[in-house]
Amino acid sequence: MKFRVTAEFDDAKTGIVETDHGSFETPAFIPVATLAAVRGLDSRDLKDMGVEAIIANTYHLHLRPGDELIKRMGGLHKFMDFDGPIITDSGGFQAFSLGLGMEHGVGKIADNIFLEGLKNPDYKGEKWAFVDDEGVTFRSPLTGQRVKLTPEKSMQIQSNLGSDIIFAFDECTSPLSDKEYTARAMERTHRWAEICLECYDRRQALFGIVQGGEYKDLRIKSAEFMAEKEFAGYGIGGSLGKSKRDMLNILEWVNPILPEDKPRHLLGIGAVEDIFNSVERGIDMFDCVSPTRWARRGVLFISPLEGGNVRNKFRIHIKNARFREDAKPIDRWCDCFVCQDYSRAYLRHLYVANELTYFRLASYHNVYFMLKLMREIRDSIKEGSFYELKKEWLGY
Amino acid sequence: MKFRVTAEFDDAKTGIVETDHGSFETPAFIPVATLAAVRGLDSRDLKDMGVEAIIANTYHLHLRPGDELIKRMGGLHKFMDFDGPIITDSGGFQAFSLGLGMEHGVGKIADNIFLEGLKNPDYKGEKWAFVDDEGVTFRSPLTGQRVKLTPEKSMQIQSNLGSDIIFAFDECTSPLSDKEYTARAMERTHRWAEICLECYDRRQALFGIVQGGEYKDLRIKSAEFMAEKEFAGYGIGGSLGKSKRDMLNILEWVNPILPEDKPRHLLGIGAVEDIFNSVERGIDMFDCVSPTRWARRGVLFISPLEGGNVRNKFRIHIKNARFREDAKPIDRWCDCFVCQDYSRAYLRHLYVANELTYFRLASYHNVYFMLKLMREIRDSIKEGSFYELKKEWLGY
Repeated sequence: MKFRVTAEFDDAKTGIVETDHGSFETPAFIPVATLAAVRGLDSRDLKDMGVEAIIANTYHLHLRPGDELIKRMGGLHKFMDFDGPIITDSGGFQAFSLGLGMEHGVGKIADNIFLEGLKNPDYKGEKWAFVDDEGVTFRSPLTGQRVKLTPEKSMQIQSNLGSDIIFAFDECTSPLSDKEYTARAMERTHRWAEICLECYDRRQALFGIVQGGEYKDLRIKSAEFMAEKEFAGYGIGGSLGKSKRDMLNILEWVNPILPEDKPRHLLGIGAVEDIFNSVERGIDMFDCVSPTRWARRGVLFISPLEGGNVRNKFRIHIKNARFREDAKPIDRWCDCFVCQDYSRAYLRHLYVANELTYFRLASYHNVYFMLKLMREIRDSIKEGSFYELKKEWLGY
Repeated sequence: MKFRVTAEFDDAKTGIVETDHGSFETPAFIPVATLAAVRGLDSRDLKDMGVEAIIANTYHLHLRPGDELIKRMGGLHKFMDFDGPIITDSGGFQAFSLGLGMEHGVGKIADNIFLEGLKNPDYKGEKWAFVDDEGVTFRSPLTGQRVKLTPEKSMQIQSNLGSDIIFAFDECTSPLSDKEYTARAMERTHRWAEICLECYDRRQALFGIVQGGEYKDLRIKSAEFMAEKEFAGYGIGGSLGKSKRDMLNILEWVNPILPEDKPRHLLGIGAVEDIFNSVERGIDMFDCVSPTRWARRGVLFISPLEGGNVRNKFRIHIKNARFREDAKPIDRWCDCFVCQDYSRAYLRHLYVANELTYFRLASYHNVYFMLKLMREIRDSIKEGSFYELKKEWLGY
């Protein structure tokens, strides 16, 4: 894997990541294909809409259909018929969401689930994952059987999947984890990173993940540790604090330490406001399930041209009665085929009737919307108009 | 609307139906877009796969989103972005399935539901529709409100929808209806047909529906009545008896009476075996939800090349463990994009994981499969090899 910076504007930059399965431009929004499919879309859709790279989930594919099956079927690219760059995550986030996340009742920072977790501090979910120094033991939600993920196992699974970019196995902490626990988890992540560096499949590009929660000294320590290792790129993962400001602080601590010639992936983040602010602070890659997950809940993305802004989070709920006879497309700024062919009235009808066709059209629009936004962000960096574009979208 | 016969081979024939929104070739399989969408597919898919005409449901669209709304949105073609010929049914079948069908616990003849109904003769469902001489009163399953469909109302709704071909309002009977009831329902259907002929929208082509259940004298009487009227084409509807042989008898009684220069639509039938036998007896048009409904249940269509035959009904269940690592496409005879791009193993994985993407891919294949079969049937009629093709598929 090679990374080449093509333009810089303050700390924002554009670049190209080249892999054995083609390249993608950064800053990139990378759609999530959890189980070897971006929910509701097929691989022809991805090509048609210009998706250059996708990220699939190591943990989920290990359980179903099994990484060894995928290997026997010729690897993930062939299995799902996607010939562009494929990234796989480490499985560490699932260790979090099924373990501490369940226990603390929190999801990802900057996510509504998190805010609900804060509102219900007494919520204690059932814990489905247990961490020790060797790795994470899950109970499979499918079979109830124990599954142990270790750094070695994560590397083996990702090798079987045959992805182009892989992540070192890490332990994510929760925003409710105290500093002592966060420090311990970080040290574990560091040891695991060293194991991964020793045993990963050399045909793949390994990214290390910076942990350390919301604690400045821990984040700096973790970034310094990772920066010294021979990783092809870096993820910034785990708890990003309790507010958007916390997240930006973390980026401001970490990014100056990470090597400039290696791409930086902010894991699991995909809100429009976060993307602008993170690109401004040197982030190159994003992934998030939000476009397809919101689509399924009836939420469609809109640009400032249709009234999208930071307060409404660039979203409309298509079920709203005001769209009942709205002949306009979802968004006149968007030129996806859904916006070319169908009205809000039609999409609302399909959504209200719970028609399968709705899920496809809504998912297509929301993913395309993010791709188009990223193209505009890249163009603005190249043209020196990033702050104008940011102001147009965020109002600041 | 014009109908032109282009080739004949015994009673089988090919033809072209021309409407203001383009034409379609017959014998045609017409996918069902119940609520202005073929489930799981969008209108670009329909164009890509070569769907020439679709049929939508008057009753369902009247309830949701409402035919008047669709009219204000520019009609059904514009609303769902399909610019080919659109057919709408009369609403009469829903009078059956929500009324007598519920009461008798039966669905359509030649359908598994029917056989289950026969197995459970004591089953009495709740009746949701009541027939009198004026029309049918439904309770809306959505709101609980009463909705009355009459011949005048059916014509008004179909005019609002703006479809190219419409059906006269009819009363379907059940295979468990006695001769007396079936005769009364037929007489009602005849009176309603006359009302429809008086008040239908002249921009649309009106088809009459032959009723009479499984009773020879009634079917002949109904066919003679309809044949004398100025209809643009004819549907054969209602109870088609208790066996496949009953259905073919009905076609053999009715088709010689119906004018040869008008297309004949066998309503709600779409099994491979039934299509061959009905085309052989002069049927020009079919519609059925089966390709998409079966797809959603994990059932995919296969040709004789993959072992499809009358006994297995040309179907495989993709969940079967033998497809777990099957790298072959669903069907090597089929050249749809699903069969070009994906393995049975991938589709099985998506189905087992309940991924939305599965529903689209499976629906696409099954609908395409029927279109390709109809193309081969048309070619065989033109080339004089219909019986060879039939033997290849049915074994007789």
